[in-house]
Amino acid sequence: MKILTQADRSFAATLKKVALRGAVQSSAVEKTVRTILQAVQRGGDRAVLRYTKQFDRVALKAEALRVSPEEVKEAYHHIRKDEGDALRFAAQRVTAFHERQRTKTWMYQDETATLGQVVTPVDAVGVYVPGGKAVYPSSVLMCAIPAKVAGVERIVMVTPPQKGPINPYLLVAADIAGVTEIYRVGGVQAVAALAYGTKTIAKVDKIVGPGNIYVATAKRLLYGTVGIDMIAGPSELLVVADEETNPAHVAADLLCEAEHDEDAQVFLVTTSERLAKDVSKQIERQLKGLQREKIASKSIARHAVAFVVTTMDEAIAVANEIAAEHLTLSVDNPFDYLEKIRHAGALFLGRHTPPSVADYIAGPNHVLPTGGSARFFSALSVHDYVKTSNIVHYTKEELRKVRDYLVRLAHIEGFDAHAKSAESRFS
Amino acid sequence: MKILTQADRSFAATLKKVALRGAVQSSAVEKTVRTILQAVQRGGDRAVLRYTKQFDRVALKAEALRVSPEEVKEAYHHIRKDEGDALRFAAQRVTAFHERQRTKTWMYQDETATLGQVVTPVDAVGVYVPGGKAVYPSSVLMCAIPAKVAGVERIVMVTPPQKGPINPYLLVAADIAGVTEIYRVGGVQAVAALAYGTKTIAKVDKIVGPGNIYVATAKRLLYGTVGIDMIAGPSELLVVADEETNPAHVAADLLCEAEHDEDAQVFLVTTSERLAKDVSKQIERQLKGLQREKIASKSIARHAVAFVVTTMDEAIAVANEIAAEHLTLSVDNPFDYLEKIRHAGALFLGRHTPPSVADYIAGPNHVLPTGGSARFFSALSVHDYVKTSNIVHYTKEELRKVRDYLVRLAHIEGFDAHAKSAESRFS
Repeated sequence: MKILTQADRSFAATLKKVALRGAVQSSAVEKTVRTILQAVQRGGDRAVLRYTKQFDRVALKAEALRVSPEEVKEAYHHIRKDEGDALRFAAQRVTAFHERQRTKTWMYQDETATLGQVVTPVDAVGVYVPGGKAVYPSSVLMCAIPAKVAGVERIVMVTPPQKGPINPYLLVAADIAGVTEIYRVGGVQAVAALAYGTKTIAKVDKIVGPGNIYVATAKRLLYGTVGIDMIAGPSELLVVADEETNPAHVAADLLCEAEHDEDAQVFLVTTSERLAKDVSKQIERQLKGLQREKIASKSIARHAVAFVVTTMDEAIAVANEIAAEHLTLSVDNPFDYLEKIRHAGALFLGRHTPPSVADYIAGPNHVLPTGGSARFFSALSVHDYVKTSNIVHYTKEELRKVRDYLVRLAHIEGFDAHAKSAESRFS
Repeated sequence: MKILTQADRSFAATLKKVALRGAVQSSAVEKTVRTILQAVQRGGDRAVLRYTKQFDRVALKAEALRVSPEEVKEAYHHIRKDEGDALRFAAQRVTAFHERQRTKTWMYQDETATLGQVVTPVDAVGVYVPGGKAVYPSSVLMCAIPAKVAGVERIVMVTPPQKGPINPYLLVAADIAGVTEIYRVGGVQAVAALAYGTKTIAKVDKIVGPGNIYVATAKRLLYGTVGIDMIAGPSELLVVADEETNPAHVAADLLCEAEHDEDAQVFLVTTSERLAKDVSKQIERQLKGLQREKIASKSIARHAVAFVVTTMDEAIAVANEIAAEHLTLSVDNPFDYLEKIRHAGALFLGRHTPPSVADYIAGPNHVLPTGGSARFFSALSVHDYVKTSNIVHYTKEELRKVRDYLVRLAHIEGFDAHAKSAESRFS
């Protein structure tokens, strides 16, 4: 891990570079994605199956796209009971937290009108679940449960086809979470099918869930045609730690993000240069023998930086500038710093909150803004699965009270039909 | 206005076509926009000024981009006092409504953890305000006031340069709304400058506000690099009316949207064929002599449809299928229908709520989802200017309680560093 103190010339430049890491955008990828989107929009199932054969190397018929209820039932036989229990415990925690995010319709009457806001669930949501070697049943729970809590009726999961059956953990997680339809289809063609609809896959209103740059670009290009959640990038963790912190714990936490992806970015911000050095040594020690040692060590070598500062206020300022997906505050009184934190996807407070407990068990969502987008994106929540409509009601007497203001504003904007629509009520 | 009864062969097909009207996406526009975005990202102010000269035909120096405080003060001398009063009255109504949308940080402790959600305002927001002949000071209020209510510190307005000074109504509205910086720059180059930052225009975190297809496409392509609000399209109004409704009022309301834009889409859904015919006649009569007769009559000729159905339940079903930006319920007991409405940007209830009162005076936001996107987008709100971060806190004892579940889930996903980060606390 690179260690930089404020005296180092490259401290400011490195911090600035990290702060501006941003979302990856590629016009070459955009071009490829647009071609696939258009092909699926025009060709429906046939185009979906053609791209599935081309990219996933699996030849399917349209009838085989949908995963049958029997296949889901069968999946339970391929996982251990204690694994099922752990998934159910996690699901229960996620449900309990997200139930607190529900918002209600409200209305009030003031001196000139009755106004309010109606909250309704989205009708149909698509959840993209990546395939490949690593499978994330926890992400299925995190994407589908808030939809269920919100009251979404159709929760459609798509995941790339495998040579054999779909990974049983994904199917069990989907079943526990309340997914209502599952299709073995992935990549841009899956996103396109969800957005435009095909004969086999009815269109949805919103698409959520992480994916590679092609999936992320497809979602971005379709923004507005369907709703989408945030654009997900590689995992990130920034640990703010004082000199009392156990370096072995910090190292373990940083490796926990680093093992996700070679492009995962982990940072330490500390007032103690000694701690930075100890954490770096601990990382090298703990890396040895990790199942995903190769991936984690590449992530550390490419991206990990320890910023050594003088005061905790400076440490918080660095954290705010980086706006990381995950921010650990490894101090004795973490709640005292809450008001100073401006940007972070999730905050892990204190010395006994490893990122993994939040990834799996705690309850809050683990789908979080990356790449500095915590400056404007929120953690995935029930709010992503509902929408609000404004309510406006005037009586004739109420309308009379505001008529003159209304007419003046209509004339400023040159809209005389606007003025007349109000005046028609009095003629 | 085309009138269709359920017996007409084209009823279902027309309804389906309207329901699928969707967002306009053009890969040719995408290509042009991507070129400008890249040029501004690389060239900064120089590229911004070059495109301003090319598209707006105004030659500016970088120093002239920012509108001075004196120019804003001067603007007050160019509007009448009663006009200023009307803008201030509207601002006060918008502020009062949006103050009710504020959400707060919350936290709770349950049997295994302390969890919660922190709400923080976005640091800096860009508000795009279209230029050209029509100016919309009301949209300045609608975009900027919720940002101010949310606590956003930098509220940056951009609007295309004119031959002379910026329209004084826009400047006064910006001043009243609490805009902190104003730049005379428009189009894709303005959106790019806000997203990437230039020497003159510091980058913002989120860009809101309506614009033409180039501006809308620029926002879409930048989704994730910055936050953006919904993608705005032409105005829409769907009126559900029973046989008691005054056809002159319905016609006036429909024209109120039609005068916005030749592509504005207005619809009537009614249980009374007679009403449909009377409204159609009234439209022809009222069109005569409107300032924007040409625009409104084109909109009516191109897009207006009256769907005649048998029951109010069918009428509501049609409204839900179309998911219009604005939905008027012209019936005696509009509140009784609220639970049945699934999709609409805003609901205008009863016989005395013309769209114009909601556009200007009522208080709820008039930036609303169009093109059927009310199925997943919400009215612009304070929520668009804040973001939430999850909070997770475990004590060592609490972590011990969930340790086994956590480890099992980490192993399912093949992440042993995840398991170890928790176990490190107990070794």
